[in-house]
Amino acid sequence: MAAPPCTLEGMSDPTSGSNVPSSGLLGLLPRLPGSYDGPQTPETAPYALVGVGEGTLAAHLLQALALPSLTRTGTQFVLSSPDAGAAATDYADLAEVAGATARRISTGGRPDEIDVLVPGGPLSTYHFAQAVAYASGHAEEAQAADAALTDLAARCSPNIEENNPARDLAWSLWGRTPLLLAASDADALPHAWQQLLARTGKTLAVPLLGDILPLASGAFDARHEQGDAKVALILGDTDPALLLAREILDSRIDEIIHVPAPNGAQGYPAALALWYFGAWVAAYLAERYGAEPADPVVLARAQAGLSGEGGSEATGDLRLSAPRDDLRRTRVEEDLPGWEGDGDDDDSDDDVDGFEDPDDREED
Amino acid sequence: MAAPPCTLEGMSDPTSGSNVPSSGLLGLLPRLPGSYDGPQTPETAPYALVGVGEGTLAAHLLQALALPSLTRTGTQFVLSSPDAGAAATDYADLAEVAGATARRISTGGRPDEIDVLVPGGPLSTYHFAQAVAYASGHAEEAQAADAALTDLAARCSPNIEENNPARDLAWSLWGRTPLLLAASDADALPHAWQQLLARTGKTLAVPLLGDILPLASGAFDARHEQGDAKVALILGDTDPALLLAREILDSRIDEIIHVPAPNGAQGYPAALALWYFGAWVAAYLAERYGAEPADPVVLARAQAGLSGEGGSEATGDLRLSAPRDDLRRTRVEEDLPGWEGDGDDDDSDDDVDGFEDPDDREED
Repeated sequence: MAAPPCTLEGMSDPTSGSNVPSSGLLGLLPRLPGSYDGPQTPETAPYALVGVGEGTLAAHLLQALALPSLTRTGTQFVLSSPDAGAAATDYADLAEVAGATARRISTGGRPDEIDVLVPGGPLSTYHFAQAVAYASGHAEEAQAADAALTDLAARCSPNIEENNPARDLAWSLWGRTPLLLAASDADALPHAWQQLLARTGKTLAVPLLGDILPLASGAFDARHEQGDAKVALILGDTDPALLLAREILDSRIDEIIHVPAPNGAQGYPAALALWYFGAWVAAYLAERYGAEPADPVVLARAQAGLSGEGGSEATGDLRLSAPRDDLRRTRVEEDLPGWEGDGDDDDSDDDVDGFEDPDDREED
Repeated sequence: MAAPPCTLEGMSDPTSGSNVPSSGLLGLLPRLPGSYDGPQTPETAPYALVGVGEGTLAAHLLQALALPSLTRTGTQFVLSSPDAGAAATDYADLAEVAGATARRISTGGRPDEIDVLVPGGPLSTYHFAQAVAYASGHAEEAQAADAALTDLAARCSPNIEENNPARDLAWSLWGRTPLLLAASDADALPHAWQQLLARTGKTLAVPLLGDILPLASGAFDARHEQGDAKVALILGDTDPALLLAREILDSRIDEIIHVPAPNGAQGYPAALALWYFGAWVAAYLAERYGAEPADPVVLARAQAGLSGEGGSEATGDLRLSAPRDDLRRTRVEEDLPGWEGDGDDDDSDDDVDGFEDPDDREED
């Protein structure tokens, strides 16, 4: 919040490792289930949760655990990334002043401001979410989520040629604009899929927010052709309002597809499983468009600019940076020199898991 | 939540009064500021707030007051409409069991389940929001909001031919798809404008949710032509991430327009003023498309179906229904027969403020 405005000009080059090649993300996704290996011990109750930057989506997906935003006692979880470090510090300070213990989970930043370091990038959502699920005493839900993800991985992996639900859905979305709907208590799902389809699938999708009936009945009235090449995805459980909205949309847009949680999962495991399925769909959609399902160079530049990269050890402004899209996780202990990079402006080789550097893709 | 699924077939006809003619909404909007005349006395603190159905948006716009969702002591506000009555009852019961006093504010329903009755329809958001602002001890903010709305009314009314900011913005949106952006602590604003532009302006708009940088940098990569005929509206205050997103979007879409809160308003008054400005823009946009800025017939049918209309006095299932889009407000006292309609299936003339019934518009 306190960070000064900055522009894209004059920013340092992004680390080359942020551009994972196509085989990269599709290679990483099958290995994601069960890869969280951070702390599993519950912190002191009660709990509250806020997320900023790359932690925003995970905090929203955890809505099924019904944690409030801020607490004056117990543990305040703050999920963040270096590009939103100032806001994260504000929330943590606020909680500490109020009497809670702040527990900061981040993809990078100053070591004295991080309790758990998780890998950055589009898959950070998984690590953020599982870290909070375990630390808030929901180990059973965390394990159920991993089981649901493992099952999905077996059905969605690239080697599954026939009846691969993720690839099939990606092909249904190809050349169309997805509309994203969910029940009112699951508004994290349209948020999740908009992020995934844009960041990884390179596609603009339209979440339909709030009271669904006025939206569905009005949005296509002025220009009926706006319903062309639109496909609605109903994510997760339906409710009576959603079923009526489906009926209203039926005559207005191309197609409506229900995407339920796999195997009747409920609550947090269902939310994380639907996020994971969305990641698969987005990766296949990018591939279908002939695009890399990787972060564009401009994103790394923008995030680096906001994070104020370039602190130096001499001034005590050491900064951590977790490997992006890596599946390893590093627990930070302040008395151990356990971090893996110091954020200096050198061009160290940040290749993850041995993938080749792709050529930097230039923005048009 | 417990309401059974229902379909559009076999529903009773909507009340004719729900179709306010063009002059209607544009005639009602100038008289909205200051028209809240409900209770102004603070209830017992602490406060919490949830909204469902037509109360969903107001609860979100009140985010500037930082009320939690649920409380075990003090007062639990529940904003609702008859189409979401079951969910509202669940929330109220939950709060009462936990030890709080539930205060139900609704556009209709059973009299024993309503504490304050507010007018329904697209302008209900104003009455819901002001009711909670006053009842939660924010009278000063409520008055500041009314002052901001009064100022906007003077600048946006139909008789202002030159430099009418609402009409000018509506013309900028004509024939294009709006993208809606706001700072991360003001995500109610894209929600509000999507609702207004669809329900009243008959136009699909695209809120960009959560962490804005991955969205803005990825969403137009697969099909660059998806940026054509798109105009981004930055609603309210900017922050560093939003300014960077603006820079990224600049080369990808047609135009970016900043819509700040009027006269440097902040917090809740700014949010309500931006909602009100959006209502003006949406009404002019509908007019520009040659459409009525009124609720479509199908919406009234759907809401009536979900509300389980048709209770009878004989079974003790009397239901209230506030006049839709009327600016009068009725305080319900259970010992007074103060309600204005009983929801029976008669075809009583529900014209508001003497407007003629428009012909029922048939859905295509």
